[in-house]
Order: sequence, then structure tokens, then C-alpha cells
Amino acid sequence: MAIVASLEKTKPEPGISLLMSLVDDDMARVNQLILDMAGANAEMIPEIARHLIDSGGKRLRPMLTLASAGLFGYAGEGHVKLAASVEFMHTATLLHDDVVDESEMRRGKLSARMLWGNQASVLVGDYLLGQAFRKMVEVGSLDALSVLSTAASVIAEGEVMQLAAAKDLATDEARYLRVIDAKTAALFAAACEVGPIIAEAGDEARRAMARYGTSLGLAFQLVDDALDYGGSSQALGKRVGDDFREGKITLPVVLAYRAGSELERGFWQRTIEKATIADGDLERAVELLHRHGALAETAARARHYGEAAVAALDELPDGDHRQALIEVVEFCVSRVH
Amino acid sequence: MAIVASLEKTKPEPGISLLMSLVDDDMARVNQLILDMAGANAEMIPEIARHLIDSGGKRLRPMLTLASAGLFGYAGEGHVKLAASVEFMHTATLLHDDVVDESEMRRGKLSARMLWGNQASVLVGDYLLGQAFRKMVEVGSLDALSVLSTAASVIAEGEVMQLAAAKDLATDEARYLRVIDAKTAALFAAACEVGPIIAEAGDEARRAMARYGTSLGLAFQLVDDALDYGGSSQALGKRVGDDFREGKITLPVVLAYRAGSELERGFWQRTIEKATIADGDLERAVELLHRHGALAETAARARHYGEAAVAALDELPDGDHRQALIEVVEFCVSRVH
Repeated sequence: MAIVASLEKTKPEPGISLLMSLVDDDMARVNQLILDMAGANAEMIPEIARHLIDSGGKRLRPMLTLASAGLFGYAGEGHVKLAASVEFMHTATLLHDDVVDESEMRRGKLSARMLWGNQASVLVGDYLLGQAFRKMVEVGSLDALSVLSTAASVIAEGEVMQLAAAKDLATDEARYLRVIDAKTAALFAAACEVGPIIAEAGDEARRAMARYGTSLGLAFQLVDDALDYGGSSQALGKRVGDDFREGKITLPVVLAYRAGSELERGFWQRTIEKATIADGDLERAVELLHRHGALAETAARARHYGEAAVAALDELPDGDHRQALIEVVEFCVSRVH
Repeated sequence: MAIVASLEKTKPEPGISLLMSLVDDDMARVNQLILDMAGANAEMIPEIARHLIDSGGKRLRPMLTLASAGLFGYAGEGHVKLAASVEFMHTATLLHDDVVDESEMRRGKLSARMLWGNQASVLVGDYLLGQAFRKMVEVGSLDALSVLSTAASVIAEGEVMQLAAAKDLATDEARYLRVIDAKTAALFAAACEVGPIIAEAGDEARRAMARYGTSLGLAFQLVDDALDYGGSSQALGKRVGDDFREGKITLPVVLAYRAGSELERGFWQRTIEKATIADGDLERAVELLHRHGALAETAARARHYGEAAVAALDELPDGDHRQALIEVVEFCVSRVH
């Protein structure tokens, strides 16, 4: 596990501290707003929302929204509401994902569906999405609403595409990239694009920030997919090998399957396509991924998108905010948790 | 089953024909837009959407949006987009409801979850909701967006409240009304309120149409809840007794339980709270509901809200549109399918 291990050796949260210090005050307001938005007449809603809110997610996406507004000197109040909306969209997706994937763990704790059931997870996810839209409407920017509502639709489309590709070893790299572009990168892109929108920074700035967010999101997901086979449960917040057990086709498997012998392909067909998994199979899978350099290759792709994210910032205003966004890329690519 | 049977004796679709003739051209455009909005890169999405679209729902809610805009002389294009958005919000709710209720039938056909699974139903519901928001943002009315996004959030809250109240015989009429106000009436109200909003008909008109929609929605749900114990499967589009089997607390049960003897309460506790249902229990339940006039009382409440809906239209412009909206009330209260 040389590659992932080397990723894990880097010092903790290398690049997120500048970002955190820049958005510290605003994030306190985002966190308060998130608690307010989780209030409801049905007791179960704040309970489940609190479970997710307290579970120690990094809140990377809302921090990106705040920093993207700050980069262009935004001085209003809308960025806090949009940041909270972005986090609610993300949280709603997690709740539904865990139902779809039958996940038992999320961020190192039992998932909401294990504690409150699938029914509540579906409905509370719907509630959080509704609250996200309500809050973003208050900001009054039709352009921001267009970007975020499009993202909501694209994320769901990506999840359906992923479901359709599950257990299908014919999935190639292009299809895999379309899935993660939709299910993950679209929200990163939207979170970053609404900053220049409400700061009225112009189309050039919007496009640059959308490109930054998309590339960062792709890098983020590629690292996640590598960590599922090479990280620790602590780093992932869920069990290592979940993707493998769910028959999820991620880039490491795409690469190893394509490069594999007949015998190896038989192994992948049995485990991923037919979902008959025995003791030792995860270890065998990891061994095959290393044999073909699939984790190293996945990490290289993540670095490639990370470089594209940094390049997207080239023409944007210099200063702490831009520096923070550059460092976030390094954080995501070398992420340990 | 005197009451419900007498409801069913009225002639088919008594009041919907004027409404249909008034919005006929616009509904053709709504239906085309619905098909366009169901398009996606993931094949499963249009397949499932088509299954729901072809299943012969009445599309009452989008017709209400069109008629509410027409009542105030709206001459733009936004009402078609808002009507399609309203129908998508409703369809998304149906998909998630069927997962939560583990329903096997919907509108007389196998439910989407029986054909494509719970996972796809959750995700495609999310997609339809995202598409609904995208389309309504295009209309560019922040007031309409506020009303519809608030409705999305309230509907989900109502569904969670219903889940929390399930199997709980301590539920009283007030709590039941709060649930159906949120899960059903909120979307009827929003569908009706966005008409005067985009027609710029003023706050008085908005409030009147919201009151009309709320009362109509309450009447609609009360009839639905009575039909579950006294209608035919054909009229309901699902199996009679589904609410009973799911332990859903509806007004007929609330009323019969309160009026029941110790022995009868024991029956409701065993069947609804403990969910141990044997052959003949549904028939026994229906008999108890009749013994205490619970279905007649539920139908009377529906008529009461129907009258309130008609009264809300008092001060609004006279003519075909108003007449059509009055007749819709009669249609809902005396609904056979």
C-alpha cells in the first residue's frame, strides 16, 4: 500500500488551516444557521440533523462557498445562507446515499439509517433539501439558484448513473469519470461558483471558480476511492472495503480489471459482479490493485485534477483567499481524514 | 358503507370537465414539458418517470396552477413551467412515499419500487425534485420560489410527522390535521398560490388562493382516508386497507378508537399498535368504523373543508375559471377515482 501509505504520512490537514482561519467568523454563523434550519415540528428531524451535524464532518463545501465569496470581496450576508444551503444539500445526499448503499457507518459513527431507520433517513433527507432551497431563495440571486438547483438535479443523476454502473465491469474510465463528475464534483463546482455570483465578479470569475470546484471535486473523489482500498477505517470514517462489498465500480477496479489476467478477471467477476465475497477476498483485491499499480495510478489522476484546480485560480485576485484555495487542493489530494 | 357508497354513486368526475376544457391547451404543453424534464443521461430516470407519467394520475395539482393563473388573466409562459414543477414535486413525493410505506401498488399498477427497487426510487425522486427546482427558477419569480420551496420543506416535515404518529393511538384529531395539512394541503395551497403571484394579482388574491388550496387539500386527504376503508381498489388505485395494514393513524381510526369500548380499543391496539393482523381484521375494522359513524363523520369533515374552499373564492373574479375551481371541490369531495 505504498502510495496511499505515503499520502497518509503527510502531516495532518496540511492546507486547511489558512482556509479555516479566513472563514472562521462566518463559519460560526453558518453553524448557527444550520442548527436553526434543522429545527422542525417533528422531533425526529432535529435529532437526526444533530446526529449528522455533530459527527465532525469537515464542512469543506460551505467553507469553499465562504472563501469563494471572500476572494472577490463580497461584503453582504448571502454567502452565509448559501454556505448553509450547500451543506444541507450535501447532508441530504449522505442520508439518501446511506439508504441506497445500506451503509452501517458514516464518519466513524453508526449511520442515521441504523439508528432511525431507512424511512426516516429518506424523509429527513427530503426535509433538509427543502430547507436548503428555502434558505437559498432568501438570498434573492436567480443565478445562484440556477447553479444550485442544477447541481441538485445533476447529483441525483450521478447517483442513478452509479447505481446503473454497479456490478458492471464493462464500466470504463470515461463512464466512471462521468459518474463522479455528477455525483461529487457538481456540488464542489456549485459551492465555488455561487461566491463570484453573489459578489458580482463577472462571468470570467464564475467560470474559473466552477472549473476550480469541478477539478477539486474530481480529485477529492479519486482519493476517496483509492482510500477505500488502502486507507484506515479511521481515516475514511467508514469501513475499508465498503465499495468492494457493494460492488461499486471505482477507478482502481476499472484499471486493475482491464490490466488483469483471465484468472484475475474471474476473481473480479465473482466478487464484484456476482457479489459472492469470501474471507480474504478484500485482501486479494488490494493485492491485485497493487500488482497493477491501480492505486498509484488513481492517486496520479487525483494529482492531475488537483493541478488543474490550482491552474484555474491563475487569473484570480492574489492574496490569502486564493492561497487558502490552493492549499485546500493539497489537503484533498493528500487527505488522511 | 352507506356514506362512502353514496359518495361513489355520484356521476363520474362531476366537476373536473370545465377545468379540463379551460386548461386543455396549456396542459398539453405541461405534459410535453414533463416528458422533456424527465430526460437524463441515466436511462433508468426516463423509464421510471414514464412509468409514473403514463399511470394515469389526474394531474389535478398542475391543472390548479394553470387555472389559478388564468383566473387572474395571466398571459405569460411561467404558469406552464410552474405547473410542471408542481407535478414533479408531487411525483417525487409519491416515489419516496412508496419506499417509506413499502407500497406494492400505485394508481392501479405495480409501484416503481416493486419494478426498479427502493434504491432507484429514492434517487429518481431526488432527481425529479431537483428538476422541479431548476424549472421553477427559470420562471424568475422569487415569491413563487419561496412558496414552492417552503412547500417542499413542509411536505417532508408532514411525512416525518406521519411516520412519528404511525401506530400511535394517542394521536388526536388536531395532530392528524397537522399531518395532513403539511403532507397534502401544503402542495395544493402552493399550486394555487403561485397563479396569482405570477399574475401579480396582489396579496389579497394570494391569500385567498392559498386558503382555497389548503381547504381543498384537507378535503381531498380526508376523502382519501375514508376511501381506504370504504372504497374499491379500483377507485383508490391501491389496495383497500393499506393504511390499516401500515398502522397509519387516519381520522376514521382516531374517531372510532375514541368512541370505542374497552374491547374495541383492544382490537385497535393489537392491529394498529402491535401490527398483528389476522384474516377478517380489516372487515372487523370497517364494521367498527361504521358502528361509530367514523366514515360518515370523516366525510362530513371533508364537506366542511370543501365549503371553506368555495368560500375562499367569494371575492375573486367571477367567470369560468372560478366556476371550474368551485366544481373541483365537488369533484374532490365526491371523488370516485
